[in-house]
Amino acid sequence: MSDVRVIIQRDSEREERVVTTGTTAAELFAGERTIVAARVAGELKDLAYEVKDGETVESVEISSKDGLDILRHSTAHVMAQAVQELFPEAKLGIGPPVKDGFYYDFDVARPFTPEDLKAVEKKMQEIQKRGQRFSRRVVTDEAAREELADEPYKLELIGLKGAASSDDGADVEVGAGELTIYDNLDAKTGDLCWKDLCRGPHLPTTRNIPAFKLMRNAAAYWRGSEKNPMLQRIYGTAWPTKDELKAHLEFLAEAEKRDHRKLGSELDLFSIPEQIGSGLAVFHPKGGIIRRVMEDYSRRRHEEEGYEFVYTPHATKGKLFETSGHLDWYADGMYPPMQLDEGVDYYLKPMNCPMHNLIFDARGRSYRELPLRLFEFGTVYRYEKSGVVHGLTRARGFTQDDAHIYCTKEQMAEELDKTLTFVLGLLRDYGLTDFYLELSTKDPEKFVGSDEVWEEATETLRQVAEKQGLPLVPDPGGAAFYGPKISVQTKDAIGRTWQMSTVQLDFNLPERFDLEYTSPDGSKQRPVMIHRALFGSIERFFAVLLEHYAGAFPAWLAPVQAVGIPIGDAHIDYLHKFAAEAKKKGLRVEVDSSSDRMQKKIRNAQKQKVPFMVIAGDEDMAAGAVSFRYRDGSQENGIPLDEAIAKIAKVVEERVQI
Amino acid sequence: MSDVRVIIQRDSEREERVVTTGTTAAELFAGERTIVAARVAGELKDLAYEVKDGETVESVEISSKDGLDILRHSTAHVMAQAVQELFPEAKLGIGPPVKDGFYYDFDVARPFTPEDLKAVEKKMQEIQKRGQRFSRRVVTDEAAREELADEPYKLELIGLKGAASSDDGADVEVGAGELTIYDNLDAKTGDLCWKDLCRGPHLPTTRNIPAFKLMRNAAAYWRGSEKNPMLQRIYGTAWPTKDELKAHLEFLAEAEKRDHRKLGSELDLFSIPEQIGSGLAVFHPKGGIIRRVMEDYSRRRHEEEGYEFVYTPHATKGKLFETSGHLDWYADGMYPPMQLDEGVDYYLKPMNCPMHNLIFDARGRSYRELPLRLFEFGTVYRYEKSGVVHGLTRARGFTQDDAHIYCTKEQMAEELDKTLTFVLGLLRDYGLTDFYLELSTKDPEKFVGSDEVWEEATETLRQVAEKQGLPLVPDPGGAAFYGPKISVQTKDAIGRTWQMSTVQLDFNLPERFDLEYTSPDGSKQRPVMIHRALFGSIERFFAVLLEHYAGAFPAWLAPVQAVGIPIGDAHIDYLHKFAAEAKKKGLRVEVDSSSDRMQKKIRNAQKQKVPFMVIAGDEDMAAGAVSFRYRDGSQENGIPLDEAIAKIAKVVEERVQI
Repeated sequence: MSDVRVIIQRDSEREERVVTTGTTAAELFAGERTIVAARVAGELKDLAYEVKDGETVESVEISSKDGLDILRHSTAHVMAQAVQELFPEAKLGIGPPVKDGFYYDFDVARPFTPEDLKAVEKKMQEIQKRGQRFSRRVVTDEAAREELADEPYKLELIGLKGAASSDDGADVEVGAGELTIYDNLDAKTGDLCWKDLCRGPHLPTTRNIPAFKLMRNAAAYWRGSEKNPMLQRIYGTAWPTKDELKAHLEFLAEAEKRDHRKLGSELDLFSIPEQIGSGLAVFHPKGGIIRRVMEDYSRRRHEEEGYEFVYTPHATKGKLFETSGHLDWYADGMYPPMQLDEGVDYYLKPMNCPMHNLIFDARGRSYRELPLRLFEFGTVYRYEKSGVVHGLTRARGFTQDDAHIYCTKEQMAEELDKTLTFVLGLLRDYGLTDFYLELSTKDPEKFVGSDEVWEEATETLRQVAEKQGLPLVPDPGGAAFYGPKISVQTKDAIGRTWQMSTVQLDFNLPERFDLEYTSPDGSKQRPVMIHRALFGSIERFFAVLLEHYAGAFPAWLAPVQAVGIPIGDAHIDYLHKFAAEAKKKGLRVEVDSSSDRMQKKIRNAQKQKVPFMVIAGDEDMAAGAVSFRYRDGSQENGIPLDEAIAKIAKVVEERVQI
Repeated sequence: MSDVRVIIQRDSEREERVVTTGTTAAELFAGERTIVAARVAGELKDLAYEVKDGETVESVEISSKDGLDILRHSTAHVMAQAVQELFPEAKLGIGPPVKDGFYYDFDVARPFTPEDLKAVEKKMQEIQKRGQRFSRRVVTDEAAREELADEPYKLELIGLKGAASSDDGADVEVGAGELTIYDNLDAKTGDLCWKDLCRGPHLPTTRNIPAFKLMRNAAAYWRGSEKNPMLQRIYGTAWPTKDELKAHLEFLAEAEKRDHRKLGSELDLFSIPEQIGSGLAVFHPKGGIIRRVMEDYSRRRHEEEGYEFVYTPHATKGKLFETSGHLDWYADGMYPPMQLDEGVDYYLKPMNCPMHNLIFDARGRSYRELPLRLFEFGTVYRYEKSGVVHGLTRARGFTQDDAHIYCTKEQMAEELDKTLTFVLGLLRDYGLTDFYLELSTKDPEKFVGSDEVWEEATETLRQVAEKQGLPLVPDPGGAAFYGPKISVQTKDAIGRTWQMSTVQLDFNLPERFDLEYTSPDGSKQRPVMIHRALFGSIERFFAVLLEHYAGAFPAWLAPVQAVGIPIGDAHIDYLHKFAAEAKKKGLRVEVDSSSDRMQKKIRNAQKQKVPFMVIAGDEDMAAGAVSFRYRDGSQENGIPLDEAIAKIAKVVEERVQI
C-alpha cells in the first residue's frame, strides 16, 4: 500500500492529498453527495475509479452539463432494465442522454401504451430504491458478442466500434477505445440484475437519481434510417432535485400552452392542411392581418434605412444554381427539379441571393450607387426531411425578409454597423429585449478567400458586435465557407433561446457572378456582399412572437384590437358608432352583436386574447363613455368616447404591450 | 339563255334584277371597285361566281372583315408566287390571313434574309402590276395529288381534307367540301403563272391589291408541332388603301415604342434574365416601386370593400388538384410534378382557388360570416409553351390579385353588382377609361350544374352588367364548364383592347370541396363561389399600364416623382433641402447632383419620364422658389417652395396624369 499523491480540483479550488493505492474518486469526495463523477486528464470517470499517482482529479457536480448527462444516461439504464423486467422479449437499441432528458429505443412486438409507461415508471422507482450499483467492466469484442448474443442491435454496435457517428447516438455505447459493459449489481448481494454495453460513466448507484419522469413514447428507426427496423422509443427526463423536475414540467406545460401550432388553430391564425403537405402553411384572415402588419412595419423601416424593393420568381433554370454553386453544396436541401421545354431542369429557389445578383448585374453599376441594398420578401422552398419539419419554425416553404447589400470594401464596416443596429432596433420594436450575439469565424479546413480578407472581415464584425454592448459568444469554426457571420440570439418570455437575425459576409458569390462596379478611377472593382435576414423567415418569426406573447399580441399586432361588448341589446348601436369612429382612425374594432350573454362575450374575447374589451351599458351611454376591460381582468370605467379611441390609438401607435 | 332572277343585297339595300344565265357576281357589281367578293347563302364566293335563279347575292366590301381576309389571303398567294419565282426550290406550307395581315410558310434551304424580303416585296409589286387573274378550279383528290406531286406539304393537307383543325391554319387550304385549286393566270394570254391548293375565295386579279408590305420573317414548325420540320414564315400586311397601310405602320411603330419589354429595360423597371428562364421576370428597384404602389393601393381599396387577406404556399401535394379537378382538365397548363418523401407528387399551383377553399373549410362557417371574401396576391405558375410566352403579358409565373367570394344564393346578385362596380372603379383609378363588358354564357355541350341554376346566374350577371351602362357583348358558349362569367375589356391609349378583369361564377368547386355553411335554420347549405381577379395578373397589368402610358406614368405611380435639377453647383444644396422636405410628405424625390450639364440633366429626366423636373437657379433661390418643367417641355416659374411641394403632393394624391 504505497502512497499516491493526487490533486483534487473543485471549481477554482485545488487541494493536494496523499492517499493509499486503490483509493477511489468516491473516497476522495466522500460525503459530497452532489458530486457524481470525476474528470481525470479530460476524461470522465465513474466515482469507482482508482486514482493514480500524480493525477489531477476534478469533481463533476450533478448539476453541471456533464453531471446532468451522467444522471440522465444512468436513468436511461434504469428505464431499460425496467422495460426488460416487464417485457422480457424487448431487445435493446440505444439509450443516450439528450437535452433535458434521455431516451431508450426498444424492439418490441407492439408500441407502448400509456399504461405501459406508467408500469415502467413504477418499476423504475422500485429499481431506484433498490440502490443497485453501476459497475464498469472491460470486455473483449468476443466476450461481449457472447454475452450479448440475445441483443442483435448491441451486436451490430460492437461491429461499428469507433465508426459509429454521434448523430445516431451510438457513441454512447461504443467509443473508439476499449469496449465496456456496465453491470447493475444488487446493493446487498452484488448479484447481477441487468447489464448494458456502454461507455459510461454512470452514477455510483440508482439511489443517486434524485428525480425523474417518463414523458412520452414515439416510433424511431434503428440508427435513424428508414431502411432499418422501426423501434419504440421512450423519452424521459431526470433532474438533480425534485424542485428542478417540477420546474421543468411546469416549463413544458407553459411551452405547450404557447405552442404556436396549438395557438394558431385556437386563434384561427393559420393551418397546415394535410392536403397541401407538411411544412406548407396557409394563413387565415386573422393570421394574415398579423403577418401583414409585421411585413408593413418591416417594409417601412427598411425604406427609411435606404433599402430598395425587388421581386423575383420562385422557380428558375438550374443553371442559375450551378453558377451560384448551390447545386454543388446545397442540392440535398432543394426540391427535386421539374423538366420543362424538353430537357431543361427548373428548380424552386431555396435562397434569393442568386436572383438579387442578377438584378445587380442587369446593368453597369457605379460606385455612386453603393451601398446598393436590395430587399425582398422572398418565399423560398427547402426540402426539409419530413421528420424534422415542425410547424412554422421548421417549414418547407417560408418567406425570408431577405436583403443583400452590395458595397465597397471601405463601406463594409459602417454598413455592418448600421445593419446590426437596425436589426436589433427592429427586433426590439416587436417586443424582444433579451439578446446575445454569436460570432461565427473561419473553419480552417473549409473556406474561400484569403486569410487577410477573413481576418479583416472577422475583426470588423467583432468590432461592430462589441459596440452593441451585448454579450458576444464566439463560435470558432462555425462560419460557412464563404464568409464569417454574426447571428442575433434572443430569449423569449419563458427563457428559450431562438436564433433570429443573421448578418453574413460573402466572399464567394461576387466572384462566382463576376459582380463589378466602376470605381471613381474608372477601374472595375468587386463589391463586398452582405446577406441579412432579420426575422429569418416571417413564418418562423410569427411563430416565435406567437409563443413569446402566448397569443396575447400587443395591440399593434393583434388581429382584433378592440371588441365592443354591449351589456344589453340597447347598447349595440352605440358600440357600432364607436367602432365606426375607431375604424376611421385605422383601428381594427369589432362589435359582438351575437345572441350570447355578456359574460360569454367577455369569455370569448378573452379566449381570442383581444387587448381591449370595450363595454357599454346604460350608464356609459348616458355619460357618452365606455368601460375598458383588459385581458388580465382589470377594468377602467367611464372613459369618454373620444378619449377611449385616442387611448387605443396611442397604445397601437407606440407598439407597447398592455 | 334563259332569265335568272336574283336579289342583290348591299348592306340594308335590296335590289331585284333579272339577268341572263351565266351572269357573274362581278357583272352584278360592275364598276363597284370596293366590292371584292359575294356572299351567297352564307358562303363566300369569288366575283367570278355565276349566279343562279332565286339566289340572294350579297356584296362583300374590301374593308369588311371578310373582305380584308380575302385581300390578305390573296396577297399571301402573291407572296408565295414571288418566293417560288425567286427561290424555285421553296416548298409551300400554308398561307392564311391573320389579324392585320397574312403569312406564308416555306420549306427553304436557309432562313430568309432582310435582302430576300426586299426582293420578294419587289417581285410582288411586279405580280401586282401584271394583274394576274385568280381562277378557281375544282379537282379530285387524285388529280390534285398528281398536280402537286412536288409539294409534299400540300399532299399532306389533301390527306387531311376535312380533318385539319383551324388552329394550324390548314383549313384555308382544304375545307370539308370539294377540293379546289386556284390558278394565277396571265392577264393577257391566260397562261398559268402559279397555282395553289386553296379553298378561296380570292380577289378577281392581283391588281385589286391596293397596298401591302412585308413585315418580318420567323421560323415556325409545320402545323405547329415541334415534332415536324421547321419552316420559314414571312409575315406581311395588306390594306384597302395606301392611307390605311400608312396608319397601320404608324400604329405599329407607336406600339413598338411602347413595347413594355423595351420600356422595361430603358427605364430599368424589370428584366427577364436568360439564366432564370423565359416568362419569369425579376423586378428591379424602380419597377418594384411601381408594382408596390399598385399593390398597396389595390390592397387599401380591397380592405375598404371588406376583403380579408390570406397567404398560401406556391407548392402543394397533387392530391389537392385532384380534388379540385385541375389535374383532369388543366394538367397541360401545369409545371411537371416534383416527387418528395419517396413517392408523393408535389405541384406548383396554377391557381389559388383550391387553397382558399381549404381556408374556408378550415373550420365550420356560419351564414353570419358570409359573404366571406378571401383575397391574396397569389403567385401562380403555368406552363405556357415557349412559343407563346411574351414578356409580362403572357408569362410562366405571375401574381394574381385573386379573390374568392363565398356567399349565399340570396347574396349573389348584390355581391356580383358590388364586385363589378368595384372592379371598374379600380381600373378607372389606374387611368383606364374605355371599357366594354363581355358575358360568356353556357356551352350546351359542356357544363356542370342544372339548367335552372345557369339560367338564373346568367340572368343575374346580365342584369348587373347592364346596370353599368357599358356596351355588353355576348359570348355565347364561351363560359367555362363550371359557370358563366363577365369579363371587362378595356382599350388603351392607342386603341388596343385588353381583357382585364374577370368575374366568374363557379358551381363546381363548392361541390368538389364539399363546402358548407350553417344557415339560420341550422341546416347545412352550399355557398356560391365567385372567382375574381381585377388586374388579371399584376405583371400583365403592369405591362398594360406601361404601354398605355408609354412609360410616362402619372405621378402617383412614377418611381421618381420629381427630380431636382440645379442650374449650377451652387443650387444643389438648396434642392437637397427641397427634396428632404418633399420626402417628409412621402414623395419620391431625387436630386441630380452629377457632373452633367443642366441640359443633359433635363434630357436624362425626360428620358426617365419623370413627371416633375424641379429646376433651381440664383433667381429661384433668392425668391425661395423653384421652377417646374414638365415632360411635354412646358415650364412654370417662380413657384414658392411650400407651394411646389403641395402641388406635387396634390397631383399624387389625386392620381391624375399631368
